[in-house]
Amino acid sequence: MLPLKLSEIAKILDGTLIGPDDPVLTGVAGLNEAGASDLSFLAVAKRPSDAAGSDAGALLVGPKVVVDKPCIQVEDPYRAFAQVLAGQQIEADRAFPPGVHATAVIDPGADVSRAAAVGPYCVVGAGSVLGSGTRLGSHVSIGCDVTVGVDCVIHPQAVIREGCRLGDRVIVHACVVLGSDGFGYLPGPTGMQKVPQVGIVAVGDDVEFGAGVTVDRATTGRTVIGTGSKIDNQVQIAHNVQVGRHCALSAQVGIAGSCVIEDGVIFGGQVGVGDHITIGAGTKLGGQSGVTGDLEPGSRVFGTPAQDAKESFRTTAATRRLPQMQALVRELKQKIDQLESRLAAVEGQHPSANNDQEN
Amino acid sequence: MLPLKLSEIAKILDGTLIGPDDPVLTGVAGLNEAGASDLSFLAVAKRPSDAAGSDAGALLVGPKVVVDKPCIQVEDPYRAFAQVLAGQQIEADRAFPPGVHATAVIDPGADVSRAAAVGPYCVVGAGSVLGSGTRLGSHVSIGCDVTVGVDCVIHPQAVIREGCRLGDRVIVHACVVLGSDGFGYLPGPTGMQKVPQVGIVAVGDDVEFGAGVTVDRATTGRTVIGTGSKIDNQVQIAHNVQVGRHCALSAQVGIAGSCVIEDGVIFGGQVGVGDHITIGAGTKLGGQSGVTGDLEPGSRVFGTPAQDAKESFRTTAATRRLPQMQALVRELKQKIDQLESRLAAVEGQHPSANNDQEN
Amino acid sequence: MLPLKLSEIAKILDGTLIGPDDPVLTGVAGLNEAGASDLSFLAVAKRPSDAAGSDAGALLVGPKVVVDKPCIQVEDPYRAFAQVLAGQQIEADRAFPPGVHATAVIDPGADVSRAAAVGPYCVVGAGSVLGSGTRLGSHVSIGCDVTVGVDCVIHPQAVIREGCRLGDRVIVHACVVLGSDGFGYLPGPTGMQKVPQVGIVAVGDDVEFGAGVTVDRATTGRTVIGTGSKIDNQVQIAHNVQVGRHCALSAQVGIAGSCVIEDGVIFGGQVGVGDHITIGAGTKLGGQSGVTGDLEPGSRVFGTPAQDAKESFRTTAATRRLPQMQALVRELKQKIDQLESRLAAVEGQHPSANNDQEN
Repeated sequence: MLPLKLSEIAKILDGTLIGPDDPVLTGVAGLNEAGASDLSFLAVAKRPSDAAGSDAGALLVGPKVVVDKPCIQVEDPYRAFAQVLAGQQIEADRAFPPGVHATAVIDPGADVSRAAAVGPYCVVGAGSVLGSGTRLGSHVSIGCDVTVGVDCVIHPQAVIREGCRLGDRVIVHACVVLGSDGFGYLPGPTGMQKVPQVGIVAVGDDVEFGAGVTVDRATTGRTVIGTGSKIDNQVQIAHNVQVGRHCALSAQVGIAGSCVIEDGVIFGGQVGVGDHITIGAGTKLGGQSGVTGDLEPGSRVFGTPAQDAKESFRTTAATRRLPQMQALVRELKQKIDQLESRLAAVEGQHPSANNDQEN
Repeated sequence: MLPLKLSEIAKILDGTLIGPDDPVLTGVAGLNEAGASDLSFLAVAKRPSDAAGSDAGALLVGPKVVVDKPCIQVEDPYRAFAQVLAGQQIEADRAFPPGVHATAVIDPGADVSRAAAVGPYCVVGAGSVLGSGTRLGSHVSIGCDVTVGVDCVIHPQAVIREGCRLGDRVIVHACVVLGSDGFGYLPGPTGMQKVPQVGIVAVGDDVEFGAGVTVDRATTGRTVIGTGSKIDNQVQIAHNVQVGRHCALSAQVGIAGSCVIEDGVIFGGQVGVGDHITIGAGTKLGGQSGVTGDLEPGSRVFGTPAQDAKESFRTTAATRRLPQMQALVRELKQKIDQLESRLAAVEGQHPSANNDQEN
Repeated sequence: MLPLKLSEIAKILDGTLIGPDDPVLTGVAGLNEAGASDLSFLAVAKRPSDAAGSDAGALLVGPKVVVDKPCIQVEDPYRAFAQVLAGQQIEADRAFPPGVHATAVIDPGADVSRAAAVGPYCVVGAGSVLGSGTRLGSHVSIGCDVTVGVDCVIHPQAVIREGCRLGDRVIVHACVVLGSDGFGYLPGPTGMQKVPQVGIVAVGDDVEFGAGVTVDRATTGRTVIGTGSKIDNQVQIAHNVQVGRHCALSAQVGIAGSCVIEDGVIFGGQVGVGDHITIGAGTKLGGQSGVTGDLEPGSRVFGTPAQDAKESFRTTAATRRLPQMQALVRELKQKIDQLESRLAAVEGQHPSANNDQEN
């Protein structure tokens, strides 16, 4: 997209150019990193003076905001910036040249769209289908009977095992494993005996899997990742889990077997969820929470075992005052002892009152 | 195995057919997912009425259990179901065609059994041995001088580095790394200086490594994973750790260097263990526990720092009552202040008693 | 290096041979594992008697230490041992044969040093540069426009995506992903809308990445890993994080977006850091800590939410005494109730005192 004049960018973004200068911008960058030929943005939450230290050549700013630089006023500067970024993204052609690389091993029984791109050393098994516009980086391993929809992107070294199904526009980052065996055993005479895992992983549309994510196939049936859900790096999802639509799972989250995550649930990083737990729609889980029981829709939780976030903060605050509280209790105990002695002395002079008490 | 008549399945499982119907079953599925031609099972813990909503064509049930469907009575329905699943598992031939794929790079100095299967783009280094019946998926990287026993399964993109040794019937899932360098440094004049890691990883028989597991080689000697232990996805095991026999490590567990995990230890997900710690045989660790010291055999622990699970639950419960307790202590303090004033007033009328107390 | 006579090793290490025996040593091993032809070491912290049970053929020991075996006295036995290990490390030639393997796919537009080694099935994209002495294992995926300095080691299945830059002597272990997309979305009419991630990952010199580490590229600009920092297995570093020089990140640490980790910070395992947090130079974080706010240089923290380590230990100790404390508070409450009754009885005999109090 770039280089472009600022005025040309303003037209594309449907924004208002605040001149008079109209520099040519060749790149995009954050406020602190931007140089004289870069376009940057001033988030709505910031003040015009926050732009003073930036070397950016021009800025995207909110409505009516004026800074001491050429700028474009737009409704939402970050969103407009993301739009410019999209134009700047490395050309798909370069990372994913069209066609099937000569070294790819495609089983004759696979159905790869002519409008798909398959990188060097990919392997696609019998019975698998790759939709139009779907692009595979190098060394991707697609097992037998896998279905991948249209316009998906699968990065290098990803593994999609036999029978799994992906919708459209799914992004799979490097070293993701979809369809590994679930962790299921029965006690046997000579140790744990493996329970065969013959189900699949079924993924909706517009899902993104970060690098190193693992999703186990179901014992029977399907492990499900719902449309629009976004899964950050190194998340682990066990067999038979059902993740709803439009959930966001931050990095290193782990969800044990057969959990049901309803729609729109937001996970902080490193959250753990025990098995067979239902998390209600729209719940938000603070980082490192450990969930040990079902959560109502709209819950806000924190801590291990996870509890209501506000209560958790109150509990944490109270816990941190514990040493002082213990000192206070010790002091109260002493005072009570003193009071007892003093009262006993008084009572000694009033035998009748004392006797009343003791009866 | 399937399709089969229910009566034929009953024979294989040594169970009792409860007819009169004898449907043909073509698949297997969980109670909620099963359709009219699927076999499912009713776990011992459930009641016959729990089967009412299922569309399954037939069920495996416990002894003497009768449901409103064709069923087979067996001692342990889940175990019998697992046996049928094993028969249903995708044919080994299909995911792992026999023989060595033309694209595999096998060093002339490697010894690959004629009864082993090696997938596309595998690399096997000099001095390595693959036993009979062992099967490698695509893109497996076997370094030099690696020994893999018989009937092992190694899934795509797994990496087994130089010198490591695996027993028989070991399963290695995708993107596992066995034999990466341990995290060892010495302070040096220009920063941390790497301590060479020249040991190996030694794995017993019947071990399973989930997707994305990493096990570091020993600095010297061996990092050991004992026979029959099962390791879930994304577990991390550091250099010189000794894992005993028949342990189960749930997903995302991390064990720091030189720990000794005795036999039969069960880890919940995301547990962390500090270095040089011994965990006694048969210990069970609750999810997300953080172990900071040795644990006696048979321990049950929870929390960070990990403590006895029952005490931990008591502590957690007490912690959650803390805000009320603090309110109570404040109330007691007020009462004591009042008592002091009132007592002082009484004492004012008994100077001698008061003086006794103060001496 | 080995086999060597003990006297020859003493010369290399500049140590003092304590004879009279001068055995030939063929291997190196820890104290408990060493056999009769192995060299081992006695750490400074240990006593000579700790060597009694070892079968080692000879020992490296501290200054003036004498044991009942042939030994070499050196300033720092462990450091000297590491020096011998370095000599023992598997020959680079064997794991990384020189030259470019016939199966490697090197784009004509890539610049691979003639003194670099590229293993089987590696892929190197257009515009990428591999410096002299840099060695790639099998199946390494290097995207377009990647720069790798001199004397780097990149293990099998590692992925370095487009545009990333590595300094000299960087070690990248198996299944590492550098340059995956950051986890950035904007709310949109049909769900979360991906914010393009067009920045890079920039890595200094002498950095080591453990197996399975993931580092996301910046949204714009650079995610930075400073010179000399060491990163253990399965660590996750999000977009736009700045890691300083000579930091050590233990296994399974997760750092959220845009954090600044200053120089020399030491992370225990499984630590989590929320986004946009600054951790001051030289800070040490205990295992599993969860950091929710900025930390001053030189901090020592523990717990979730992370707090000063000493306070955290005090708080934990106080928490564990909570059940007893609650019992004590209940007891105090009873005593106060009794005191109140008794005092009321006394006051009943002194109406005037009581009235004073109530006014």
